[in-house]
Amino acid sequence: MPLADAAKEAGVTVYHLNIGQPDIESPRKAIDAMRAWDGKVLAYGHSQGQKFLLETLVSYYRSCGLDVNLEDVFVTTAGSEAIVFAMTAVADPGEEVIVFEPFYTNYNGFASMASVKLVPLTLSVENGFHLPPREAIKRKITPHTRAILYCNPNNPTGTVYTEDEVETLADIALDNDLFLLADEVYREFIYDTGVKHTSVLQFTDIWDRAVMLDSVSKRFSMCGARIGHIVTKNRDIWASVMKFGQARLCPPQIEQVAVDAAYRMTPDEYVIPMIAEYRRRRDTVYDKLQAIPGVKSFLPEGAFYLVAALPIDDADRFSAWLLTDFWKQEGIRETVMLAPASGFYATEGMGANEVRIAYVLSCEQLGRAMDLVARALEVYPGRKT
Amino acid sequence: MPLADAAKEAGVTVYHLNIGQPDIESPRKAIDAMRAWDGKVLAYGHSQGQKFLLETLVSYYRSCGLDVNLEDVFVTTAGSEAIVFAMTAVADPGEEVIVFEPFYTNYNGFASMASVKLVPLTLSVENGFHLPPREAIKRKITPHTRAILYCNPNNPTGTVYTEDEVETLADIALDNDLFLLADEVYREFIYDTGVKHTSVLQFTDIWDRAVMLDSVSKRFSMCGARIGHIVTKNRDIWASVMKFGQARLCPPQIEQVAVDAAYRMTPDEYVIPMIAEYRRRRDTVYDKLQAIPGVKSFLPEGAFYLVAALPIDDADRFSAWLLTDFWKQEGIRETVMLAPASGFYATEGMGANEVRIAYVLSCEQLGRAMDLVARALEVYPGRKT
Repeated sequence: MPLADAAKEAGVTVYHLNIGQPDIESPRKAIDAMRAWDGKVLAYGHSQGQKFLLETLVSYYRSCGLDVNLEDVFVTTAGSEAIVFAMTAVADPGEEVIVFEPFYTNYNGFASMASVKLVPLTLSVENGFHLPPREAIKRKITPHTRAILYCNPNNPTGTVYTEDEVETLADIALDNDLFLLADEVYREFIYDTGVKHTSVLQFTDIWDRAVMLDSVSKRFSMCGARIGHIVTKNRDIWASVMKFGQARLCPPQIEQVAVDAAYRMTPDEYVIPMIAEYRRRRDTVYDKLQAIPGVKSFLPEGAFYLVAALPIDDADRFSAWLLTDFWKQEGIRETVMLAPASGFYATEGMGANEVRIAYVLSCEQLGRAMDLVARALEVYPGRKT
Repeated sequence: MPLADAAKEAGVTVYHLNIGQPDIESPRKAIDAMRAWDGKVLAYGHSQGQKFLLETLVSYYRSCGLDVNLEDVFVTTAGSEAIVFAMTAVADPGEEVIVFEPFYTNYNGFASMASVKLVPLTLSVENGFHLPPREAIKRKITPHTRAILYCNPNNPTGTVYTEDEVETLADIALDNDLFLLADEVYREFIYDTGVKHTSVLQFTDIWDRAVMLDSVSKRFSMCGARIGHIVTKNRDIWASVMKFGQARLCPPQIEQVAVDAAYRMTPDEYVIPMIAEYRRRRDTVYDKLQAIPGVKSFLPEGAFYLVAALPIDDADRFSAWLLTDFWKQEGIRETVMLAPASGFYATEGMGANEVRIAYVLSCEQLGRAMDLVARALEVYPGRKT
């Protein structure tokens, strides 16, 4: 970040492909609902979330074909709190949660807060970061394992797990008395016919083992609202979440009004056109990447990220060089900020030549950014062929 | 709560003296600032908090005579998050934090989330819940103790610790290499000349051991905003807090705009008249209590609570009876909800005949509520003389 700031101070335009902050406008109806709030006392709300929002969430999940009831839902202060609460509820300090790497970096911080140990199982760009065979997953289970945490559609890889893959996870959870923590915040971010999202809640035989984690941050481009939710039919887990929820009293109030308005929109009003825009962006980035010699990637099926292996010595060095040297060397006033993928791996040394690209800019900006990446790979001193 | 709901459904007015939710209006300027927000994207903010708010907070603390700089402050999602972050930063799982009981109940939930063990030291209504002698505090220190957590002015007792008391805590922290976690959310809630608030940050020799916890919930009657702050000059603790803060990305955005406007008001505009109102309320409750035979209490010096020992068998039973039987027996349509103090003690059996009263209603309502308490104590079957 300091390198990006320095470049900007030198008058350089930096295309941020490194962060998952969409440029998509938040729903006008949500912002208007917030601006229309005219209470006298901004008082505590319910720990579970305000009833109007809980009811709206039940309707939303039912519209997704999921059998969710009022008592299954819990409103959290963003997906972040949902993950911390879930980890703390399923595992005691020192116990283990299996994750698939690369994974959303902040799982590390949440695990640290919950004092649980993340046990990574490494995936490969070669098969589009799909899950390894059942036996490989089972080998990671120890007497201390309490849960498997996965993100579907996946951040950072863009992979959408097949129904078979999710079913395999469900089977493993059932056979080994584990919880299945399913981060489904990108549920709607699916780009191709033939690919569909499989929710952990579709498998009724593991309802008692399933904890779904969700958030409005990406669905409604409201990252700053800090509203998420947990859905679980396990009453003990729900009661633990309630205990933590009561300690922190309540989630932010005004944003619940905004989020409620967002969820009450029809898909046509917001989500469907947004997904169409992301599809164009994904295609732009992917087509450009395909044309660059030596780059290994795959067509992401969902979310708004992809991970690509580049023909370079080290992605940290390459990313820094883009900000410090590339534009000077080329005599231009533009460059790109990438996220080195090493940060998404727990295993030392993994992902050294990989980057995550978030396609959260306009197609025009993304096209230009990818042209810059292509040029940079031609002239980068650490290029490997 | 179900008992109170049942009474209300029967058409009974319930005076809530049990919760710290003020009826005081939030600052109009804060609500207007929120309503005036007209951004397009409700985006992620900075993990530390937005710069405009951090700068305003520095001005606020300096106006309190505290030498606080921008890099000392961290905006949290309410005081709740401030406490969890601080506990997690100072103690590893299983380590101990000394607290004085009765204490704010939710410390239990935060300790459970942070996997730290609270070690209670019992105070007494007899000396207005002031701190015990130095040696008694030191006896609670074990090789696993990492911090002392205290709340000043105190919730639930209303006690304001003297400068000597805070200095003693500072000395103990310094001598025993402990952190001092000071919950100062009621800083301004002081009612008498001759009583003043002593901040942990006044003792420069323990700057490296001090973590101040703060919140706007009570100061601006904005409990639903969920904005708090941590102030510490210990760079390691600050860095730990930043690590947790980065994991949860950012505090809610819109409320930071509102809170900034609240802090920019002069004390005359809001806090001073609010404190004057609370002083009238305190006097109303205390005068009424004093006139009830057999009640043991003391004039609370700060916050907006007091703890009173009642001439009853059991405060849980008495509180329930107020909601279920008292009004029927009296043929009236009014009653009172109290908080049994046992919930504020960690030690089993403590506070059995004590209640906490939050004076968060108008003087008229409080007067009526206290008259009902007086009458109830006359006719309660479990009365003890």
